Amino acid sequence: MSEAAQTLDGWYCLHDFRTIDWSEWKTKSEWERQSALMEFNQFLTQSELNEEARGGSFAMYSVLGQKADFVMISLRPTMDELSDLETEFDKSKLAEVTNPAYSFVSVVELSNYLGKDGGDPYANPRVQARLKPILPKTDYFCFYPMDKRREHGDNWYMLPMEERREMMKSHGQIGRKYAGKIHQIITGSVGFDDWEWGVTLFSDDPLQFKKIVYEMRFDEASARFGEFGTFFVGTQLTQESFSQKFSL
Amino acid sequence: MSEAAQTLDGWYCLHDFRTIDWSEWKTKSEWERQSALMEFNQFLTQSELNEEARGGSFAMYSVLGQKADFVMISLRPTMDELSDLETEFDKSKLAEVTNPAYSFVSVVELSNYLGKDGGDPYANPRVQARLKPILPKTDYFCFYPMDKRREHGDNWYMLPMEERREMMKSHGQIGRKYAGKIHQIITGSVGFDDWEWGVTLFSDDPLQFKKIVYEMRFDEASARFGEFGTFFVGTQLTQESFSQKFSL
Amino acid sequence: MSEAAQTLDGWYCLHDFRTIDWSEWKTKSEWERQSALMEFNQFLTQSELNEEARGGSFAMYSVLGQKADFVMISLRPTMDELSDLETEFDKSKLAEVTNPAYSFVSVVELSNYLGKDGGDPYANPRVQARLKPILPKTDYFCFYPMDKRREHGDNWYMLPMEERREMMKSHGQIGRKYAGKIHQIITGSVGFDDWEWGVTLFSDDPLQFKKIVYEMRFDEASARFGEFGTFFVGTQLTQESFSQKFSL
Amino acid sequence: MSEAAQTLDGWYCLHDFRTIDWSEWKTKSEWERQSALMEFNQFLTQSELNEEARGGSFAMYSVLGQKADFVMISLRPTMDELSDLETEFDKSKLAEVTNPAYSFVSVVELSNYLGKDGGDPYANPRVQARLKPILPKTDYFCFYPMDKRREHGDNWYMLPMEERREMMKSHGQIGRKYAGKIHQIITGSVGFDDWEWGVTLFSDDPLQFKKIVYEMRFDEASARFGEFGTFFVGTQLTQESFSQKFSL
Amino acid sequence: MSEAAQTLDGWYCLHDFRTIDWSEWKTKSEWERQSALMEFNQFLTQSELNEEARGGSFAMYSVLGQKADFVMISLRPTMDELSDLETEFDKSKLAEVTNPAYSFVSVVELSNYLGKDGGDPYANPRVQARLKPILPKTDYFCFYPMDKRREHGDNWYMLPMEERREMMKSHGQIGRKYAGKIHQIITGSVGFDDWEWGVTLFSDDPLQFKKIVYEMRFDEASARFGEFGTFFVGTQLTQESFSQKFSL
Repeated sequence: MSEAAQTLDGWYCLHDFRTIDWSEWKTKSEWERQSALMEFNQFLTQSELNEEARGGSFAMYSVLGQKADFVMISLRPTMDELSDLETEFDKSKLAEVTNPAYSFVSVVELSNYLGKDGGDPYANPRVQARLKPILPKTDYFCFYPMDKRREHGDNWYMLPMEERREMMKSHGQIGRKYAGKIHQIITGSVGFDDWEWGVTLFSDDPLQFKKIVYEMRFDEASARFGEFGTFFVGTQLTQESFSQKFSL
Repeated sequence: MSEAAQTLDGWYCLHDFRTIDWSEWKTKSEWERQSALMEFNQFLTQSELNEEARGGSFAMYSVLGQKADFVMISLRPTMDELSDLETEFDKSKLAEVTNPAYSFVSVVELSNYLGKDGGDPYANPRVQARLKPILPKTDYFCFYPMDKRREHGDNWYMLPMEERREMMKSHGQIGRKYAGKIHQIITGSVGFDDWEWGVTLFSDDPLQFKKIVYEMRFDEASARFGEFGTFFVGTQLTQESFSQKFSL
Repeated sequence: MSEAAQTLDGWYCLHDFRTIDWSEWKTKSEWERQSALMEFNQFLTQSELNEEARGGSFAMYSVLGQKADFVMISLRPTMDELSDLETEFDKSKLAEVTNPAYSFVSVVELSNYLGKDGGDPYANPRVQARLKPILPKTDYFCFYPMDKRREHGDNWYMLPMEERREMMKSHGQIGRKYAGKIHQIITGSVGFDDWEWGVTLFSDDPLQFKKIVYEMRFDEASARFGEFGTFFVGTQLTQESFSQKFSL
Repeated sequence: MSEAAQTLDGWYCLHDFRTIDWSEWKTKSEWERQSALMEFNQFLTQSELNEEARGGSFAMYSVLGQKADFVMISLRPTMDELSDLETEFDKSKLAEVTNPAYSFVSVVELSNYLGKDGGDPYANPRVQARLKPILPKTDYFCFYPMDKRREHGDNWYMLPMEERREMMKSHGQIGRKYAGKIHQIITGSVGFDDWEWGVTLFSDDPLQFKKIVYEMRFDEASARFGEFGTFFVGTQLTQESFSQKFSL
Repeated sequence: MSEAAQTLDGWYCLHDFRTIDWSEWKTKSEWERQSALMEFNQFLTQSELNEEARGGSFAMYSVLGQKADFVMISLRPTMDELSDLETEFDKSKLAEVTNPAYSFVSVVELSNYLGKDGGDPYANPRVQARLKPILPKTDYFCFYPMDKRREHGDNWYMLPMEERREMMKSHGQIGRKYAGKIHQIITGSVGFDDWEWGVTLFSDDPLQFKKIVYEMRFDEASARFGEFGTFFVGTQLTQESFSQKFSL
């Protein structure tokens, strides 16, 4: 196998973006609304218990603007569990007042451009922790999918490994400057979804999202080779703030 | 950090474009319609009070053509406040007869290509006023999102800073010719939305929008490097004209 | 101002394409249908009176194929009047059985590549008549929006004025060969809508639309630099034929 | 006129693709369903009589996959007749359970790259028969719209006539190899619809559609200059099989 | 015929992706839901019997994310049979609670780049088995459509046969490394659908989909010439798990 094609892969990941049908929500009785929120809170509590048991992770954010109203980000060891989670939500009472807005299927990935010490990286506890991460509970999140460009003159996949490694190193150096301000989770979606990677950023200061993405845009790896999908940004939702958001 | 990646950032901004479901509006009783407009007028009055207290700004315009029927432009110091505003509108009675048409999430931005006097620009009152602007109440507005092109042969982000600065300077000179005719607010959306910037123009003569955009199109910064999204144009809406628009 | 960026601008223009919801129309009672058509005929009569008073112009055509069912083309001296017209139609009974299909916001424009005699062109009665035109009442119409290309190697806006003028001259010569067969109105939409120009053609022989557009496609101004949006074609609608179209 | 811009044009053509709203169809009573099918059968019978009288032609095919459920292809001497046909169908009972899926407006065209014998081609009976064709009633059809590419390096419309003629000749030679297996009707849509041509293929063996399109793709006229829209393929519908398709 | 344009073609194939309208499903009575599932189970049983009789093949998978909820993949000797299957499902009770999400029409294809032994390949039993395959019943599937690029500088269809053959050979060598892990079925859709090929992968380990697609992306045949459509991935559905998915 070409050296370039090696990645370390961890938990599967589903970003599930939804819009709220407020008119439909208003047609529900007070009792139906309470019942829907209670059922959804049980769903959230299950996710928390699962996270505590290290069986996956979960985060939920409100989305600013019309692209979606909220997103549920779920990590699980298998695709089957993600599929079951999705079906469980689809059948829920709350789902009756939401519409699909966007989704992204991927798997937590560590880059093949990382230095290697020769041993089995999967045996490394630090690697394991990064492949099976607990999603940070920061105040804000940002998500966008991306590709490496394959155009005449700017074709990432035709570059020699060494050149790609150099560019990714420079790219990583920008990222490290934001350590402590931004927590970043990269998920790979080649073969799973329409883009090659998903980038999920977590921070307590949303301006940091703009700063890092803008600074990286001048970096050759992004400037020449980055193609970006749609961007989502928003604020954290807890069980409490979620119920608050739905209160009429 | 690369010099190119520095910006000054102020208030967060949400452009919220909506269409009106006239058939649904007509199904409402006279009492329901009055009630919806009264609730929305309170929303507008809150926005005015907030603006007077320098806690943000708000403007509303009718949109010509089918892309949307009206737009609410809101500025606030935090994303959380914008998110709350959006949810408040979504839950309102008037929202039941509107549909989302387009939205844009950004933050007021001053260019990094501006001359610098060495001090802390955020301490400069003139800079502060531009970063936290009161939206002009002109008769007409124009909005469009834009990117700087990153194509082989025309890649803005691969140019040296000096070359970009020269082009932006020439660009700015065209803009200055429209001083007094057009008020322009640039908001940055890298990491927040699908385009890199939003341009909101305010004028009492809509022909000026056409003149400035067309003249700039021959300027190298736009001719070679500008990519433009959808354009919206329309006429100002006050509490009175908004209620008038909705009267049957 | 760069010579290239000068245009002469006249009446504002709204192309309002609509589809008919026939199932909804059939649910209306005979009385409701008559009432809707009567109200719309008053709208048409107002437009005719306005046209006779030289306060604007109006034309209506059926659209062939599924892109739309009919189009209303309105010219007015101000954007406010167009906006009012649009709202008036939106509130009408007939609008309840139509859906928006496409719209185009622009302003009648005379090219800056025209020869100039040195005087104030706006003082020229012939120029005035072309800037404030009465829309021809031909049997067929054709509409399409267009851009001048800005790509590496084929960037219209980076060409010297002289080169553009030469190409537009050759382009105009093709157009003149169709004098008497086709009446053409060019409207500018830079800053107003997503394309730079709208081309509306009027003829009593629809084959002429195909002939002129195809012949021009070999002309360098189009072959290398023309980008075209969606094309609409159809047959004239009078008050009578419109009512006939809606009769069940 | 440039030699390249000459075409021979015959009957106008409307491809009208529709999907069936099966849930709506099921809500209709047995009587309503019979009534809708009877009305549509009269529409089909009219089309057959019109075809026998050489006043146009008609064919109907089922479409495989979700893009559409069936297509009606109509040829008529005038656009007005096509427009009337479309409106007649729109008002029909059957139309209440169909939705528009795609349409294409064009005119039967003979290429300007054909050899010419100097006389008036329209006086040639064989040319007349090809310009006013009776649509074959083969078991399968295939339709796709196409453009000739106008990109830097591959710009068909900037090539000399002789070069284009050579390529079209080679293209035609491939086509002739399928004589007896495929019947092809080319319609021109420049100025009428969003693509420049429509290609409608008829055959009793659907594999021939794949073979000819694939073989032509290696031909320079397609390989370098062909841009293709959406492809539709399906099986013939007669009055009988159409009613059968709708039986519950 | 150009050597390049020869393919071996087998059974016709329809990928039919559907979403579930859960709100509509919930409005059905318990009796209606059982009735709909029983009818669909008969449809599935027919497909199994047909497969046992070597009259085609069938597989069904759940789809992860919002692009679709499940897919039915059907192979049949004729297009007519696929068309009948589609109509049969469209009329079914279950179809009332599903919506079309995506479809793909193609035919099982063996590459013309395969070595040839001179005899009639269709007489070869191994070739016959590959052209009329029984779809594997693996735990996971992956589907994506693709094209070979035809751009200036990267135009697959302008390359000499020998160069294409070399690239496809290298491509095939990567594929063979996944033998035993992934079962791959290539279907050709030139002339049938909007992409040139469909790739359907079957595996008991979904991570293999990511590995093979990512590794191939560095291979020149994909890196320079592969254009990819939307990717679908999901888990197997049996009669039992399908009914389970629909249980409320």
